[in-house]
Amino acid sequence: QSSLTVYGVADAGLVLERGGDAGAVQKLGNGVASSSRLGFKGKEDLGGGTILTFILENGYSIDTGAAKQNGALFGRQALICVTGEAGALSVGHQYTPFYKTLNNVADPFATGMAGNAQNIFDDTTRVDNTVEYITPRFHGFSADVQYGFGETAGNSAANRYIGASGTYENGPLTIALAHQQRDNATASAHSRNTMLVGRYRFGDVTGHLAHACNRDVLGSESHDTMLGVSAQMSGADRLFASVIRHHDTTSAQRNAVQAALGYSHALSRRTDIYAAYGHIRNSSTAAFHVGTAADTGSGTTGVNLGVRHVF
Amino acid sequence: QSSLTVYGVADAGLVLERGGDAGAVQKLGNGVASSSRLGFKGKEDLGGGTILTFILENGYSIDTGAAKQNGALFGRQALICVTGEAGALSVGHQYTPFYKTLNNVADPFATGMAGNAQNIFDDTTRVDNTVEYITPRFHGFSADVQYGFGETAGNSAANRYIGASGTYENGPLTIALAHQQRDNATASAHSRNTMLVGRYRFGDVTGHLAHACNRDVLGSESHDTMLGVSAQMSGADRLFASVIRHHDTTSAQRNAVQAALGYSHALSRRTDIYAAYGHIRNSSTAAFHVGTAADTGSGTTGVNLGVRHVF
Amino acid sequence: QSSLTVYGVADAGLVLERGGDAGAVQKLGNGVASSSRLGFKGKEDLGGGTILTFILENGYSIDTGAAKQNGALFGRQALICVTGEAGALSVGHQYTPFYKTLNNVADPFATGMAGNAQNIFDDTTRVDNTVEYITPRFHGFSADVQYGFGETAGNSAANRYIGASGTYENGPLTIALAHQQRDNATASAHSRNTMLVGRYRFGDVTGHLAHACNRDVLGSESHDTMLGVSAQMSGADRLFASVIRHHDTTSAQRNAVQAALGYSHALSRRTDIYAAYGHIRNSSTAAFHVGTAADTGSGTTGVNLGVRHVF
Repeated sequence: QSSLTVYGVADAGLVLERGGDAGAVQKLGNGVASSSRLGFKGKEDLGGGTILTFILENGYSIDTGAAKQNGALFGRQALICVTGEAGALSVGHQYTPFYKTLNNVADPFATGMAGNAQNIFDDTTRVDNTVEYITPRFHGFSADVQYGFGETAGNSAANRYIGASGTYENGPLTIALAHQQRDNATASAHSRNTMLVGRYRFGDVTGHLAHACNRDVLGSESHDTMLGVSAQMSGADRLFASVIRHHDTTSAQRNAVQAALGYSHALSRRTDIYAAYGHIRNSSTAAFHVGTAADTGSGTTGVNLGVRHVF
Repeated sequence: QSSLTVYGVADAGLVLERGGDAGAVQKLGNGVASSSRLGFKGKEDLGGGTILTFILENGYSIDTGAAKQNGALFGRQALICVTGEAGALSVGHQYTPFYKTLNNVADPFATGMAGNAQNIFDDTTRVDNTVEYITPRFHGFSADVQYGFGETAGNSAANRYIGASGTYENGPLTIALAHQQRDNATASAHSRNTMLVGRYRFGDVTGHLAHACNRDVLGSESHDTMLGVSAQMSGADRLFASVIRHHDTTSAQRNAVQAALGYSHALSRRTDIYAAYGHIRNSSTAAFHVGTAADTGSGTTGVNLGVRHVF
Repeated sequence: QSSLTVYGVADAGLVLERGGDAGAVQKLGNGVASSSRLGFKGKEDLGGGTILTFILENGYSIDTGAAKQNGALFGRQALICVTGEAGALSVGHQYTPFYKTLNNVADPFATGMAGNAQNIFDDTTRVDNTVEYITPRFHGFSADVQYGFGETAGNSAANRYIGASGTYENGPLTIALAHQQRDNATASAHSRNTMLVGRYRFGDVTGHLAHACNRDVLGSESHDTMLGVSAQMSGADRLFASVIRHHDTTSAQRNAVQAALGYSHALSRRTDIYAAYGHIRNSSTAAFHVGTAADTGSGTTGVNLGVRHVF
């Protein structure tokens, strides 16, 4: 079928982790800068400006060949989307607006390598059973709302997920506000996260700022603040860095600070090599780890060196 | 390779279920009208009128991205087939002749949506370890026989499956007789099903009639009778309905009646939207549920609203 | 993407096994001559004689549709490779040099059908978390070294795998030496295998000779010796046979001898049919079984009859 495309990412590298409870470890990392994936997507023009697309995207571990996302075949994305002048309506297993804001706008590491903002930020990457609507952009403003069915018989609020984001773009400036909440299995309580993000492109240098307020299902609150910068060097080289501070408002004071530096060099339009360093200083009993795009990690220091091929 | 084709179905919709033991539930249905699938098929001309084909077909849940069929990668179909003037011989993980008769001839819902005949009919959709032979059609007659190895060491009859169907087609008329039986793990008993099906196309309206006799492995007998109709409306619209009566001959009298109505509207040759309603009245302790193409369901009333894209 | 290729093997046949503990069994074999597989591979020219390739290769059972390799999605191969004048460097889930020597050089059955050398030889087919380097061929010599990270925190030697092979090719002659060793979970001991292989092509007839020395993690030693022959008959037919003797040096004397004969007939460049017979005589409490390419088997006699299609 002419409209079907097979695409993906093959990313592998060396990952050194230090400071974990069980000691240092050297790994062959799978999906360090970007999670390795294989996807199938298709498109049909339904006429009248309406386009139907579908995406089936698998995540795999290149070091073992196994499927990621607890073995789900298309654990990254599985959706049908109808796009027209009135916006885009999609259903399936989809990224959350919260994750997209963190990944696309906030994080200079784009949730990859040792500096992955998800090492610290409390984030739901994707949700099952979702219906999502994205508005067209109007004077720079757009909105994205998502509802995930809890699919609990007798209690439609149990396990449900609600997410939304609003974005304003104007030339070099992007500002986004994202929110998500998920009810527990009896709908007696819900966790929630709210994040405000700003990004400004000063020529080849981009500044990133993000602040998130989190409340878990037991009512404990915390805050995450990120300051990031990325610089497109002459030609193929890119440098990026971020500092993230996690502030625990409870008496346990499980605070943490992450600092990370990354570098990538494009060998071609589709292939780059990269290196990164990240370190987390946990306070009290905080137990944050330096991970990568595809791995949550086991140490408080992480070093990455790898190659990423996009196909 | 020029002969390889990637194909599939992406089908998703809203499914409302009422009357289940745990209460009503709203779901994002995966594969409501047709089960969502991704397949790879290829063909080689071996000369002399002989064609080799293979099919590897995965079933997935578009609401979670997970593989269906208990996680089997190609859980829908995996087979090699050699076709020639003498018929088609295939081996692998294949549809049963019984299922093909139910799906292709008997059921106006084509085993999809709330009216899926499989909600009531006792049916084996596919079997492992099968060898199947389909005759050419001769004066309207054709036959399909299938043997599934039990693969039990020391007892070749244990767990084996035997299926067959005979079909007569003459212009608007199709009549088919299908049978299947499966031995239990010690080959001390077997379940069996026999079904007679008739279909007649009166112009744009098609009538469907099916009657099945079932005997389970313990010897209990039941009967299923279906009356169905489908109508191709002007242009892109199709209406279909069926009534199915399940008669339990045992003293438990677990009888049931299902009635269902469906509608589909083609947006293009490859995409349609659909709606369906189905209801089951269970008697005694009968516990039949209104499902969809891909889901067995939890309620006695089901409402579907969705979109199906074939690629 | 123009550089992406979808490829694979669909292989199925009848497999009769006799002499197993639970009695004889008839099976629909999945991957008898070659394991059934579906792969995706791609290539990018990075310039300067450097080529990047990736391979994602699934193994599946055509009799059930399930994934092989304990359900791993790309359980056969998952790797990125950079190839240039200085050789090939690859990372991922890869074949071992030991297996490649056994499969490509030593075994006239190419580790398939009832004569699969892996029925007897102690062999690791593939390893996770590997980095591998293959030298260019220089005056007929080439080398292949592989390191598999154990990925055990606090003990970098635990569970690690080391493999290497050296090959000399000169016209009809190939000689190869392969070695592998794997540390146990505490790195207190390791198993190891060393194999010397010779192959000589006398026109259409090829002779194969292999001898392996094995020491398991407890220190028990054994030897495997294989004598094989394959003959390309006129046109499309090929005959091959091997005898393998396993000598257990411990007092348990779990010795065995396997003898096997195989035949294949090419129907086209991509499809062949095949038949094979293999028998193992176990001494003492030895419990070797006649398997196939994809199945370890349950009997001491195996008969195969099948078809293999490469796409």
